[in-house]
Amino acid sequence: MPKIIKVSLRNNPYHIVCGGGTIDSLGTYLSRLKLGTDALVITNSLIKNKHGKAISAPLTRAGFRVKFRLVPDTEKAKSLTMLPGLIRSIAEYGVSKKPFIIAFGGGVVGDLAGFVASIYKRGIPYIQVPTTLLAQVDSAIGGKTALDLAYGKNLVGAFYQPKLVVSDIGLLKTLSPRQVRSGMAEVIKYAVIKDRRLFNYLEKNSRDILALKPAALEYIVARSSRIKADIVIGDERETKGRRTVLNFGHTLGHAIETASGYTGYNHGEAVGLGMLIACGISTRLRLLEAPAAERIAGLIKCVGLPVKIKDVPLSSIIKAHYRDKKFIGPSNKLVLITGIGKTKIVNNVPLRVIKSAIKAVM
Amino acid sequence: MPKIIKVSLRNNPYHIVCGGGTIDSLGTYLSRLKLGTDALVITNSLIKNKHGKAISAPLTRAGFRVKFRLVPDTEKAKSLTMLPGLIRSIAEYGVSKKPFIIAFGGGVVGDLAGFVASIYKRGIPYIQVPTTLLAQVDSAIGGKTALDLAYGKNLVGAFYQPKLVVSDIGLLKTLSPRQVRSGMAEVIKYAVIKDRRLFNYLEKNSRDILALKPAALEYIVARSSRIKADIVIGDERETKGRRTVLNFGHTLGHAIETASGYTGYNHGEAVGLGMLIACGISTRLRLLEAPAAERIAGLIKCVGLPVKIKDVPLSSIIKAHYRDKKFIGPSNKLVLITGIGKTKIVNNVPLRVIKSAIKAVM
Repeated sequence: MPKIIKVSLRNNPYHIVCGGGTIDSLGTYLSRLKLGTDALVITNSLIKNKHGKAISAPLTRAGFRVKFRLVPDTEKAKSLTMLPGLIRSIAEYGVSKKPFIIAFGGGVVGDLAGFVASIYKRGIPYIQVPTTLLAQVDSAIGGKTALDLAYGKNLVGAFYQPKLVVSDIGLLKTLSPRQVRSGMAEVIKYAVIKDRRLFNYLEKNSRDILALKPAALEYIVARSSRIKADIVIGDERETKGRRTVLNFGHTLGHAIETASGYTGYNHGEAVGLGMLIACGISTRLRLLEAPAAERIAGLIKCVGLPVKIKDVPLSSIIKAHYRDKKFIGPSNKLVLITGIGKTKIVNNVPLRVIKSAIKAVM
Repeated sequence: MPKIIKVSLRNNPYHIVCGGGTIDSLGTYLSRLKLGTDALVITNSLIKNKHGKAISAPLTRAGFRVKFRLVPDTEKAKSLTMLPGLIRSIAEYGVSKKPFIIAFGGGVVGDLAGFVASIYKRGIPYIQVPTTLLAQVDSAIGGKTALDLAYGKNLVGAFYQPKLVVSDIGLLKTLSPRQVRSGMAEVIKYAVIKDRRLFNYLEKNSRDILALKPAALEYIVARSSRIKADIVIGDERETKGRRTVLNFGHTLGHAIETASGYTGYNHGEAVGLGMLIACGISTRLRLLEAPAAERIAGLIKCVGLPVKIKDVPLSSIIKAHYRDKKFIGPSNKLVLITGIGKTKIVNNVPLRVIKSAIKAVM
């Protein structure tokens, strides 16, 4: 039986359906939602080749019209230059009907398709069918959509909630080990900031997870979705500070991604390194005991994420860090931890402490 | 004393401040709102030349940093191609600070600046300082923002409420008579759909209004703002059907604008003609008595709006009408009236009735 996670936002409630084979029931779920009869599936050619029939068959069976709209299989798809063509595709598909959008892919597809849905005629419905572990546990949940500009990543976007998220863990079978590891960084993040029990589970079952055993995948995807959904429910538009804990490992992680020119490390790998640095800062500020920090480092290493920064100079990381969009001027705000499952937001951590913690993972 | 119109939306409440010289107090109003210290004024060179100091002086006096960002003085400013440059301007202005946007101009500037504010980092605050009668009574109120694509007008947009609207009727002095008439079409619309008393006022005071007498302008801008705000409060995101009455005269008006290639008639002129046609349909369907229709036609003529369609063939209007984004397939939905101040939504009006009503104003 699939697990149903209710995202009970007052104005935009929806469900996350998580489990093996959930995509087979997509037509049934969508029929209940009454979003219309015409689905425009935004995806890329790799995913369409692997899973195109898996998504079109249940939709066609339930009487939906289905059209695929392909976008590039790179971060380049998240560009303003994609908009005119995509908008035209929707307009032409929906010239006499109202289509809805299905974001079928990883984080890039989800961010792009969600943003397009938010702005087309001031908003048409969309659903997320994430195909990567990272998207299932993180980017498909929470309604953050975004595009990159040459001038900066995620500079443009909207808060726009999907009407449904269908996470089929069966789709994860075709991921590369590196993609799985990248998603695991976010799962570890949830455990460290919110859920000691999940952390224990990850320590005990990392082998099953990396071997993509269904029971293990279902548990971590459902549990991560629940944690993220709870945080989002408390702070839908990131105005109350409650979403801040989600930045654990991300502030320094983004700096590492930027400093490496988005080529050296993927998002999850950079977040893994960022979590190590955040733990290092936490111990240096005597917020966290060394054994807990060692357990976290041990888990990050155990799932195969990098634990040393290579080929990125300290000065570049620091420079990128102070250009992060979450800072104002030379101040900083970091999510630190006082134990596994317990966070503490700290403002204006001294630069020498940050540098020392970065150096320790170089 | 300026008139304050409260737009009491549950999640996005704001005030419309309306009167003569209200722009002089802009700094005071903004200080209270605490939107930050850095104002980016999006406007065009014509408005900056006429009224640049009128807006920058009170802001500077109140301690705000002010920068102007100019956009073209045509509908072309409402284009996706404007976005990368505008986003970059905001990012560079706000690199170490959080700016807010002031939309200073007519409907084009308001639609563009509001949309840009809605998508920059998923939303930064903006206020509207409308400089045309049309913008003061209509487009600056209600949170609808939009851009045009080559493929269609207003295809892209967001519902995004301003934090404040400051309507200074003193700014209207520099409008051309044609611009004033265009705004009057919307004022007449409010009277016809909602307010018999406003209608009587317009009949009695049209000369004072066209002569831009302050008392008359203040009355019609404040009254129109109140009517529009009340409708928006009941249907913020156009999901409940209550905003539909605002389409009175607009469905056929848009068809005339489209059929004339957006060159023959401006928006207000086309809406005036659209209202005449809507009245004609209403009388043909025996919803409206002839004397009321004649009074409405009389007022439209009295303010100098065109009352005959010239150089646009009937077939082009009908064709454009059935491509209007509010329709699905060959059906239609028209806002008709049963008297001055009383509307009735009618579905599937027979084509021969529509044609006959159009022919009557040709």
